[in-house]
Amino acid sequence: MDIKACVFDVFGTCVDWRTSVSRDLAAFGKEKGLAGIDWLEFAVEWRKQYQPSMEEVRSGRRPWTILDVLHKESLAGLLGRYRIAGLSEADIEYMNRAWHRLEPWPDVVEGLTRLKKKKIIAPCSNGNIALMVNLAKRAGLPWDCILGSETARAYKPTPETYLAACRHLGLPPAQVMMCAAHNRDLKAAKAQGMATAFIPRRTEHGPGQTTDLEADRSVADVAASDFVDLAKQLGC
Amino acid sequence: MDIKACVFDVFGTCVDWRTSVSRDLAAFGKEKGLAGIDWLEFAVEWRKQYQPSMEEVRSGRRPWTILDVLHKESLAGLLGRYRIAGLSEADIEYMNRAWHRLEPWPDVVEGLTRLKKKKIIAPCSNGNIALMVNLAKRAGLPWDCILGSETARAYKPTPETYLAACRHLGLPPAQVMMCAAHNRDLKAAKAQGMATAFIPRRTEHGPGQTTDLEADRSVADVAASDFVDLAKQLGC
Repeated sequence: MDIKACVFDVFGTCVDWRTSVSRDLAAFGKEKGLAGIDWLEFAVEWRKQYQPSMEEVRSGRRPWTILDVLHKESLAGLLGRYRIAGLSEADIEYMNRAWHRLEPWPDVVEGLTRLKKKKIIAPCSNGNIALMVNLAKRAGLPWDCILGSETARAYKPTPETYLAACRHLGLPPAQVMMCAAHNRDLKAAKAQGMATAFIPRRTEHGPGQTTDLEADRSVADVAASDFVDLAKQLGC
Repeated sequence: MDIKACVFDVFGTCVDWRTSVSRDLAAFGKEKGLAGIDWLEFAVEWRKQYQPSMEEVRSGRRPWTILDVLHKESLAGLLGRYRIAGLSEADIEYMNRAWHRLEPWPDVVEGLTRLKKKKIIAPCSNGNIALMVNLAKRAGLPWDCILGSETARAYKPTPETYLAACRHLGLPPAQVMMCAAHNRDLKAAKAQGMATAFIPRRTEHGPGQTTDLEADRSVADVAASDFVDLAKQLGC
């Protein structure tokens, strides 16, 4: 393997969206006097609409639409279901931006900083550019550039999302490693000729998680325990 | 002014393309035993084809094509004119990548590093993503993301290049400052509602330069002596 760039899934792989979104919303709810809401459940319900909302775009039923917009539409539906009323447009926008304020797993900044010395590093996420930039700036993720759904105008696991990331870097897929905590993401990347690395995030979905606990070695070229281990395995 | 992001022209504004390309090619020519070529003239002749090559795309006569490809086509023509023969495809690719190896002006890294603490910073250049990433990594330019022609699929001064940069950051144009050493670039950005800053590069075209020696205050909201001064003026 001659890896020139590592591109990363972000939600779940780099950041703990479940804890971050629920804490962020709980603090907001307290400030606004919204009582009796299970914000962890709310965050999980919000995330449940992630794949169906992107599927509208992937299927071609809907023209290209960035994730911030899909998130906001899902949020509007949830606010109705939870009978949360009386919020201003600025309040709702603030809630939606919870996805711009996600916390990284503890090994991420150190691992990326080491990798960056010898490799190009970029997200290859379904998040849009503004979301990725704001998240990275707050969390200190030292990306060389932002790739992913918005630069590709396609949502993973559509092949174009992976191929566009490689093309935009001017590299053949074999020199670009897709790094993710989700075997499905790696399977799709590998089908396009990319190198792959699995990093487990066994509590992404909480303590009872049953999926993606281990690398599927039929799709993962490298299995690392965390981002620092990944850097070591790549000689960084 | 409430500036959240500063986006930068790169060729001329951040980097000294004339000195860098000519030195890079001179070293290559020496290694390859190419004698009797004025590499400074060669670099200037190459750059003269920059605007006409992009105009083919801007005019719609040619579909979207990245700058690396336009550069390489111009290079092929120049190699013929200079009667330089016998180079391998790898040699020609190496020469074309001279544009990925440009040196920054001395104030750029310090100025960008200061600006980055409080603002989003990104190129808004006609260079493609791979060119910008490779250049930034080598020169130490600490961009938050790469914007410009390839993410917009449009060459400056087409309005879409500026508008796409703002849209991709999720910001209204008035909160994004276009920073350049070329008044024409600022005029086009201002026409789209962006804030503007002029930074003079009085030797971009050599010691006898006659254009862009001063800010045109009808298009430049801010005139800074260099990037460090720009950072100071923006409170960074």
